[in-house]
Parts: sequence; structure tokens; C-alpha cells
Amino acid sequence: MSEPLSLTDQVRRGDVFAEACPSRQILKHLTSRWGVLVLIALRDGTLRFSALRRIVCGVSEKMLAQTLQELEADGFVRRTAHPVVPPHVEYALTPLGEEAAARVAGLADWIELNLPRILGARPAAVSA
Amino acid sequence: MSEPLSLTDQVRRGDVFAEACPSRQILKHLTSRWGVLVLIALRDGTLRFSALRRIVCGVSEKMLAQTLQELEADGFVRRTAHPVVPPHVEYALTPLGEEAAARVAGLADWIELNLPRILGARPAAVSA
Repeated sequence: MSEPLSLTDQVRRGDVFAEACPSRQILKHLTSRWGVLVLIALRDGTLRFSALRRIVCGVSEKMLAQTLQELEADGFVRRTAHPVVPPHVEYALTPLGEEAAARVAGLADWIELNLPRILGARPAAVSA
Repeated sequence: MSEPLSLTDQVRRGDVFAEACPSRQILKHLTSRWGVLVLIALRDGTLRFSALRRIVCGVSEKMLAQTLQELEADGFVRRTAHPVVPPHVEYALTPLGEEAAARVAGLADWIELNLPRILGARPAAVSA
């Protein structure tokens, strides 16, 4: 009798269109409203919670904490708590997180750079 | 007195971190739960509403309609209604939509291809 395959051995390639595929959940976290901005912010280096909150304008404390938890659970963000008073907690991208963030940033960069073209190309009926 | 600049002349580059920047709203639509999957599905060509709904497993009629409306309003999707009975409505990416979709698909492809590595790298405390 052969050993049962582990989950990672079984998965050859994900399918984001399949509801049950874990890739869909991962895509959801990486493209969540705040996840996108957190990933891009962390590309510049390690940040404390308060600094992240300042950079990601508009995020609530609760939503930022939840977003960081999801990204940590997926292995994209590493949380380091320094045992000092007051508590000092830092967040950084893991190597896998760097790869994911590069792709997310690619989309955001494209939007930022092409914003005049995008705004100019909006259908008249909608922008009127 | 010089002519006032149009919005698109004023905007040099967007900033997704600024709450008021239109790039943030566009990023939100392009990375919305269903927007991501609709953009990827339409990369294969023009699709009818019902076909899109079959491909994007799990989306409700209401959410698919809303997602398509957002992407159409941003100029990424073109809706064509053929005046026949029963109504025949088709959706396709615009040239701008193709560019955006390529970046979104880049992220999804990376997730699908690296799924075993992503699942394997999850922190033990979370995957246990």
C-alpha cells in the first residue's frame, strides 16, 4: 500500500473558476479591498501596524488587523512581535508575498500610469 | 485667460493610496471578487451573460449584472445588445480592458501555478 499523497502533492495546478479550489480563496485575499494596498505598501519594507494604517488611507483598525491576519495565514506576510513595553509589532512580506505583491503592484501601477487614458475612455453615457 | 484644464489633462499619474483618487475606485472594480473572474473569462473572447454565469461558478445573476455594469462604466467591458427576440446580449473586453485583464490574469496564473508551493508554505499554526 502506497502512502497517501499530501494535499500539495495532489495539487498540480489550481483553478480560480472552481468554487472549491483553494486558489480562489487565495485570489480573494490577495485582491481584497485592503489586501491589495497592504501588499503594495509592504513592498517598500517592514512596517509597524500604525505606519501601515497611515499609508493605507481610510482603513479602520479592525479591517487592517483582519487583512493582515488573512495574508499571514496564507503565508504572504510575516508578523514579528517584539516583547517590549509598549508592544512593538512589525509586518513584512515573505518571499512568496514578494512575488504575489509584485503582480498586484503591476496592476496598480498600470492603473496609476494609465489613469488619464482610462478616465478619457469612459463611455459617455456613464461619465455624463 | 487660459482654458481650464480637463480632468484628464490635470491627472498626470494616479495614487491608489489616496482615498479621493479615481484610481482607487478603478482598482477596486478590477479586483472585486467577481470582477477579477469576469475579466479573466472574457480574455477568451466575447461571451453572453448566461455563458459568463456558467464559467464564473457561484456568481448570482444580480452580482454578475452589477459587476459587468461597473466594468462597463470604467470602459473595460463593452456590452452589445442585439435587437432580437429573445434578447441577445454579449460582453467583450475593450482594448483597455484587455490590458487590465492581462495584469489580473497574471496574478491568477501565478496563484494557480504556485498553489502547491503556497499551500506548502502556510504557517503551521494556521494550517493545523
